Amino acid sequence: MACRTLEMFEAFGFSEHVIREAYNVVETVFWSPDETCPGNIVRTGRIKDVEEDLSEMPHLILNQARVHEMYLQYMRQSCSRLQPEYGSEVVELDLSTDQNYVLTSIDKGHGNIDIVKSRYVVGCDGARSTVRQAIGLELKGDSANQAWGVMDVLLVTDFPDIRFKSVIRSAGDGNVLVIPREGGYLVRLYIELDKLAPGERVSTKQLGSDDLVKAAQRIFYPYVLDIKQIVWWSVYEIGQRLCDKFDDVSTHTGSTDTGKIGKNPRVFIAGDACHTHSPKAGQGMNVGMADTFNLGWKIASVLNGLSKPEILHTYSLERQFVANDLIEFDRHWAERFSENAVEKVGAKAKVSNSNDNKETDFQDYFAAHGRYTAGVAVKYPVSMLVSDNEYQSLATGWTIGMRFHSSPVTRVADALPVQLAHTIKADGRWRLFVFSSRHEPDDQESPLWRLCNFLSKDQASPMRHYQKAEDDPDTVIDLRVILQQSHQSLDTNDLHPFLIPEKGKLGLKDYQKVFCAKTNDGNDIFKKRGVSSNGCLVVVRPDQYVTDIMPLDATDRLSALFANILIPVQHYGT
Amino acid sequence: MACRTLEMFEAFGFSEHVIREAYNVVETVFWSPDETCPGNIVRTGRIKDVEEDLSEMPHLILNQARVHEMYLQYMRQSCSRLQPEYGSEVVELDLSTDQNYVLTSIDKGHGNIDIVKSRYVVGCDGARSTVRQAIGLELKGDSANQAWGVMDVLLVTDFPDIRFKSVIRSAGDGNVLVIPREGGYLVRLYIELDKLAPGERVSTKQLGSDDLVKAAQRIFYPYVLDIKQIVWWSVYEIGQRLCDKFDDVSTHTGSTDTGKIGKNPRVFIAGDACHTHSPKAGQGMNVGMADTFNLGWKIASVLNGLSKPEILHTYSLERQFVANDLIEFDRHWAERFSENAVEKVGAKAKVSNSNDNKETDFQDYFAAHGRYTAGVAVKYPVSMLVSDNEYQSLATGWTIGMRFHSSPVTRVADALPVQLAHTIKADGRWRLFVFSSRHEPDDQESPLWRLCNFLSKDQASPMRHYQKAEDDPDTVIDLRVILQQSHQSLDTNDLHPFLIPEKGKLGLKDYQKVFCAKTNDGNDIFKKRGVSSNGCLVVVRPDQYVTDIMPLDATDRLSALFANILIPVQHYGT
Repeated sequence: MACRTLEMFEAFGFSEHVIREAYNVVETVFWSPDETCPGNIVRTGRIKDVEEDLSEMPHLILNQARVHEMYLQYMRQSCSRLQPEYGSEVVELDLSTDQNYVLTSIDKGHGNIDIVKSRYVVGCDGARSTVRQAIGLELKGDSANQAWGVMDVLLVTDFPDIRFKSVIRSAGDGNVLVIPREGGYLVRLYIELDKLAPGERVSTKQLGSDDLVKAAQRIFYPYVLDIKQIVWWSVYEIGQRLCDKFDDVSTHTGSTDTGKIGKNPRVFIAGDACHTHSPKAGQGMNVGMADTFNLGWKIASVLNGLSKPEILHTYSLERQFVANDLIEFDRHWAERFSENAVEKVGAKAKVSNSNDNKETDFQDYFAAHGRYTAGVAVKYPVSMLVSDNEYQSLATGWTIGMRFHSSPVTRVADALPVQLAHTIKADGRWRLFVFSSRHEPDDQESPLWRLCNFLSKDQASPMRHYQKAEDDPDTVIDLRVILQQSHQSLDTNDLHPFLIPEKGKLGLKDYQKVFCAKTNDGNDIFKKRGVSSNGCLVVVRPDQYVTDIMPLDATDRLSALFANILIPVQHYGT
Repeated sequence: MACRTLEMFEAFGFSEHVIREAYNVVETVFWSPDETCPGNIVRTGRIKDVEEDLSEMPHLILNQARVHEMYLQYMRQSCSRLQPEYGSEVVELDLSTDQNYVLTSIDKGHGNIDIVKSRYVVGCDGARSTVRQAIGLELKGDSANQAWGVMDVLLVTDFPDIRFKSVIRSAGDGNVLVIPREGGYLVRLYIELDKLAPGERVSTKQLGSDDLVKAAQRIFYPYVLDIKQIVWWSVYEIGQRLCDKFDDVSTHTGSTDTGKIGKNPRVFIAGDACHTHSPKAGQGMNVGMADTFNLGWKIASVLNGLSKPEILHTYSLERQFVANDLIEFDRHWAERFSENAVEKVGAKAKVSNSNDNKETDFQDYFAAHGRYTAGVAVKYPVSMLVSDNEYQSLATGWTIGMRFHSSPVTRVADALPVQLAHTIKADGRWRLFVFSSRHEPDDQESPLWRLCNFLSKDQASPMRHYQKAEDDPDTVIDLRVILQQSHQSLDTNDLHPFLIPEKGKLGLKDYQKVFCAKTNDGNDIFKKRGVSSNGCLVVVRPDQYVTDIMPLDATDRLSALFANILIPVQHYGT
């Protein structure tokens, strides 16, 4: 599970469960043929797996079923007490009868067909997706002519790095990727097997677990692998395939067209249903969950009458873009991984600065792509949900269209160190992070005070316009303010009253909206994220991506941004 | 919940749940009468609540019912699937029929009496304990003549520190302790009420919640408390009362007598059943849980046939000692808290270095006792479970008889930074932490190699003597080794094979026993805990207290220590 996935788990409130259970990838080691005795592998490099300040979250390995269970628990404990229905299969989608609904025929077993009428359908039904076929899309791409095996094993070995993520490239026997698993004993091995002839499928080769074991044993030589138990294994060919859109209507004529198409999407596909790739970069589950995290808040927001249905076009736009990028990366990565390591025997195998050293090249490539595989390099194109970069310079550490990178701050009301991005829960709300100028917080001429006046009182305020008057002020948009003063020098009575908002039927004050830039251990979020000392406003989507950055007085820009996305409250239900 | 309590929760595997839910006490603030206008309170001080490196765990506030639920969940998910039986009441204990058993009469409701025959009985049945009365013990002590009120409230106030733990001492209207609660809104107020006449009980004063609210409002002046809802309230007098022993047989003639008494205890009392005190220092739940954490592993170990029943004497010895100390502290603390703050008006009220300043005195007193209230100052007297301090100088950071204070190390096999004390789970096992000398790990003449030879092969080894030959080598005693080399320079194949022990029916290797002293962020456990560079051996009890420290070659001392506590395996079941 990539760092970015853990950031998402934090938004769902179960990151710490995952951290306790998982294997934590701290370093990656590289093994290659010995210069003097190429039949033996030797360790040739060691890198930190997650680069400094890439994310506040670690890179973890954990059984997918455990993650699944944590989501199920989150569902069970939510207001809806949601539970999946198992044992049903989609037979057919009918989009023809009504523009506002989809009719889905579901086989509940023994030929009992239910027809479900719904506004939207999301197909997360895997590489053989019925939903994808029903909307006439197909996975396009080639299977590469390389067979790979994967197995989870209990083993005894003298290979000293068996508890490290290890990339092993042998001289002539192929390559192995070692992924230690949670619990301290289980290990996953990805093993390069034979080249396939053009058009040949891996199934025709009838490879068995014995073939995997023998291949691994050859690659690990001179170390001995004594496989005690094979818990699970599979053989596959690398295949990178992709749909050219992820919904039933989107065109791909460019981002600015979204919302002008007339017809809004009703059927979506996510995960393996729209993109498949090799498992070795560990992206499958991560990207699949990110697909639906992107889509979930949008559908919910449209169903709640808060957002214009046009925002649904951005799902295919954004995620097809990401998947396309991933496929390119995966193809390149698989090629690099499988380059015959023997070619470079005789060259210097140790890590060095020499650019013509393939081994070093490979490690550099691996390290450079850490940001990518961590899931934090995703950048969405400009759309109604991602603005142009006119004011990007006001906070250079947050790129518009990328995820809001966390940094610690100090909560004013109780001096608690808080990761700022952890204030963004998976609750569908937008966030306004206001970084104040150096003015004192009680200065009524300051940009912050004026902005608070605008947000709390002005008819054009997006914090008034899209919610009922009786709702808490943070129902749709959650305002959080970061001051440059230290918390010891501040008095909450000096703050603009809108920053300690009254909430609920008792009118209790919410003291958790205001933070100081500095923490006791020397962090300063202004410095760390390149925020202008004059301050700025960062608009963050419910899925934690940065929509826009603007000056504190750019209230027209702010109003226009939300006017393009949200529906004013008087239009609710119409 | 004190830091020490969180360390214990970590051993049960749910500390991170508590941390997510709780209020985290970062700073404590002090308010006193304004010098120039004594009717008003002003902030006079601010201290860090938990001193640097006091514990790796925070000081938290959380509803006791939540903690209860986490224990229940731990019980449900354990092998025993243990669940409490509610609605039963102990009527009578009969210790007379058999020296090996206790007969307990339990009323299961409607007069249905069950008689339960058991080896041991633990009375955690509160201040009016039936179990205590049945073994003829009584809570001794006085009620102080001071009434206090406590209430959990939802309120709106302009008091700026309402989300800080605040100690407020007014000029003439008494004192308040503010404890912010989890969730961001609820606040607990401890409010000093009237002095009681000698012999007067608080119940006779018929104080109601209105009295609490009015007293609080006077004390907070000039700040306004608008109480919106009183969630819970109570009025009590401060009373420090204590039993002089916590079991049915122990004498108090000194620690070295334990085990020589002939009769071993069968009935124990814990928590409020044997010590009551004021709630303001937040010690009640913390000390009660520590009582039973002390007792639980001892009873389990005796029932399993592993430990001599004489160790059960140490429960009363150790915990009565702690409770006595707590009562002294609590009495002193309550007196200091209630000293009339008005006395010092006119004196300098601001924090200063002046020693004759009562306010500063009070704050200094408060800060100095942070270690105490955090629960990490507990030091058990010498007994069969706590050795003399002959070799204390080998690791000055761990005091024999005190809890094993954690510090980060790096796990060799996967470079993971680990809190060393977090390897101690609540599983009843003893720990040997071996801090190696500077010798290379493959040096067969090194003290570590010799020690490993002794532990793995010698007949006198406590790691062989107390368990079956077919059991995993860490079944009774868990060996963990900390090396001075960096993990990059180590090869697990160079380690003594006993340090990567084979476990389970498949003989899989356990790679989680060996650590490096240094972490990437500059910690060195040898420096931080004053460990001799020649190394040493630290013996830690299942409840995380340090039993002994000794040189690496003190194998006779080590054998003798365990011979005094444990029963060799051939005597199992006899």
